[in-house]
Amino acid sequence: MLLTYSSIVSTVPDASILIAETERFVHDESTVFIALIILALIIFLTSKIGEEICAWLKLPPILGQLLGGLILGVSALHILVFPENDSYAINPAIIQLIQWIADIDNADATFAYTNQLIAISEGAANLGVLALLFLIGLESDFDDLLKVGPQAIIVATAGVFAPFGLGTLGLTTLFGLAAVPAIFASAALTATSIGITAKVLQELNQLKSKSGQIIIGAAIFDDVLGILVLAVVISLAKSGSVDMGNLAILLLSTTLFVGGIIALHKPLAAAFMAVTSRLATDSGLLIAGVIFALLFAGIAHAIHLEAILGAFAAGIVLGGTDKSHSLREQFQPIVELVAPIFFVVIGAKTDLTALNPANPDSYEGLAIALFLIIVAILGKGLAGYCLFGDSQLNRLAIGIGMIPRGEVGLVFAGIGTSLNVFSESVSAAVVLMVIFTTFITPILLRGVMNERQISREIATDQI
Amino acid sequence: MLLTYSSIVSTVPDASILIAETERFVHDESTVFIALIILALIIFLTSKIGEEICAWLKLPPILGQLLGGLILGVSALHILVFPENDSYAINPAIIQLIQWIADIDNADATFAYTNQLIAISEGAANLGVLALLFLIGLESDFDDLLKVGPQAIIVATAGVFAPFGLGTLGLTTLFGLAAVPAIFASAALTATSIGITAKVLQELNQLKSKSGQIIIGAAIFDDVLGILVLAVVISLAKSGSVDMGNLAILLLSTTLFVGGIIALHKPLAAAFMAVTSRLATDSGLLIAGVIFALLFAGIAHAIHLEAILGAFAAGIVLGGTDKSHSLREQFQPIVELVAPIFFVVIGAKTDLTALNPANPDSYEGLAIALFLIIVAILGKGLAGYCLFGDSQLNRLAIGIGMIPRGEVGLVFAGIGTSLNVFSESVSAAVVLMVIFTTFITPILLRGVMNERQISREIATDQI
Repeated sequence: MLLTYSSIVSTVPDASILIAETERFVHDESTVFIALIILALIIFLTSKIGEEICAWLKLPPILGQLLGGLILGVSALHILVFPENDSYAINPAIIQLIQWIADIDNADATFAYTNQLIAISEGAANLGVLALLFLIGLESDFDDLLKVGPQAIIVATAGVFAPFGLGTLGLTTLFGLAAVPAIFASAALTATSIGITAKVLQELNQLKSKSGQIIIGAAIFDDVLGILVLAVVISLAKSGSVDMGNLAILLLSTTLFVGGIIALHKPLAAAFMAVTSRLATDSGLLIAGVIFALLFAGIAHAIHLEAILGAFAAGIVLGGTDKSHSLREQFQPIVELVAPIFFVVIGAKTDLTALNPANPDSYEGLAIALFLIIVAILGKGLAGYCLFGDSQLNRLAIGIGMIPRGEVGLVFAGIGTSLNVFSESVSAAVVLMVIFTTFITPILLRGVMNERQISREIATDQI
Repeated sequence: MLLTYSSIVSTVPDASILIAETERFVHDESTVFIALIILALIIFLTSKIGEEICAWLKLPPILGQLLGGLILGVSALHILVFPENDSYAINPAIIQLIQWIADIDNADATFAYTNQLIAISEGAANLGVLALLFLIGLESDFDDLLKVGPQAIIVATAGVFAPFGLGTLGLTTLFGLAAVPAIFASAALTATSIGITAKVLQELNQLKSKSGQIIIGAAIFDDVLGILVLAVVISLAKSGSVDMGNLAILLLSTTLFVGGIIALHKPLAAAFMAVTSRLATDSGLLIAGVIFALLFAGIAHAIHLEAILGAFAAGIVLGGTDKSHSLREQFQPIVELVAPIFFVVIGAKTDLTALNPANPDSYEGLAIALFLIIVAILGKGLAGYCLFGDSQLNRLAIGIGMIPRGEVGLVFAGIGTSLNVFSESVSAAVVLMVIFTTFITPILLRGVMNERQISREIATDQI
């Protein structure tokens, strides 16, 4: 669930001066271009150094990207700060960079340039995760995924209801929270960040293992459940009751989308093959793949699903075709280039300053955070054990694969704050839970995935 | 010469309301993300259809990208309109798109979103041409390029002075222009768009032919000369005299950069190889290449050269290493994805409406445009004939390869207009000359490049 729900955003005031002023500011492309080159250099250098250090410490490289983002972001250097962070408007490092490049000393102009740089980073990050999910779709097998469908649904359902129930119970009884904030904070416990998990599985060569397929399937189903949960808690927070009509529409569109992909994946793939075989230009297949992925992402968003689910569906439809290998080969370097930007941006948006243990005001938030983290890890981590009867499965790994909340949990936290449901300490606790689950998963998952199984799969891959 | 000269941009007024207002607008990422998906779909679909139609008509595919941009841009559909175009603030199609997605009816909010989308498109286009020049550098041979150096310098020098002299003479005598506007408009005739020419040569498999190498070498040298010419005409237009100190600094930095690359390309390549051979992560080589290219682009800009020249230099340094083949393979799909955005953006920025033949006010502009086009084609087209004594060379192709002015000419036109040097008709005439030379070159170049030579080179490539 990435960055949607525009309806939540408050309406903007009228300020017609903006049009004339901004028009002058945006005119100097060169400043933005050079600042962009420097920013890109910093992002790639930091994330690559982070990856290399993690690889050297036998940790998953993606952790290095997240940590690199943490260093560049609102928690530390303030080079990459986003509008949802409080310090965006006084964002020091990037404004100094722009002033230094353009040799200007005008706060409004530098702010307009900063907006453009941040918009470009955000755009690259969002397109990066689309590309990643499309590639992961290409690498998944449609029939294998269908086969594990029932198991994935069991894991996802358990992984949604266990933390949701435990969280609501604990927050109301142990911490004395009112029902609505307790329910909302627990809703943030239900989501799974498919991007993080899928990337770690890919790094471990586990995407095609049965456990890997169950994790992916469960994460997808979890995303769909998460959208329903979010719709419920938002209407609960806004009006005190649940809008059943809206919920029914969401359920229907979700069913139609998943059913449509299952029913139509063969004709869709055939249509893609027919079109691409007629293209005369070199980049025909690549661009056709891009268009196909963007189209599915747009359709998914239009029916209130996540764009990244659409991109994944596009990948899985094309994964079974003869062009799949060639598409994968061409998308691999593109994803290697843009996906790190997404993970750096997640790290950069993470604000650790709100939970400084040296500050006594943070204690309540830290206590709630500790509780949420325990529920988050146990609730998801044990969900894999709901799968009985298949002794081949790595049930612990399946549960752990569902732990990271990533950007999804941050969406819940952000909406909860904007609706005034959360106190500052609850909001900070949800953020800390998201951070911790996101950062711990790559380490745990690598720990529990059988090393021998990994080596065998790598060997098989290289034949 | 791409989009620099920030010093030209007028200082911006103080409008502190902007900070608070813009901060609210940028908060809704989802609207921008979905608009970005739709915009990307439109760009890739239009440019790919354009390419396929051109391939079917045996025209160069790049022409299809430029025409696709023309259709999407300020001349036709107004989907992709940039701040330098007058109608940016009333940019209808993209504002309607955003209003439709976000279901908002607030001019300032939609304008802020439009700014972000345009910033992302511009950023992608600029990074796209960097990637293209880096790849072209990788595909060029350093020693071959050095060997043709003297010939490239002859062609570039002839191709700068012939159109500059002819243009100034004709504009002052035939059209009665004053000295400064005549000199400034003629200066716009001197530049060469290396991006367009290099892409066409690549499409024709002519990058490694001797003629192709001379064209690339001359275009690079031309870019350097163009920077000097621009510095001269700007100080002439501003103060009526030439700032010799500034000119000396530019000459020195240029000499140092080119000399530095020639002297240090072997140690630089060795350092790159030493670093990349120690990297443990999968994308190590790719990201190291990206960092290397961005670093050179930044250095080139810092010493007042073009960033794209830096990217090209980075490519040519790494082109001789053992990793060159692997780097080319990984950058090929990235360039195929992002380079079209650059050419679509050039097409989109091209404003044909100022020269409507049905409007008598356009006649003076059209007459000047016709004169400039003739001088532009003859002045560059015949520059190749300055190369005596080598009957193997395709001298006509060399001259034609220098014809496109592309974004470089547009920079001259834009600066001339912002300094109030040009009347409206002269400004429109310069733009039409740029358009015509940019669009005609791919057709002419394909016409004069020996078909047999092309087939032979393709056959050699495929062995």
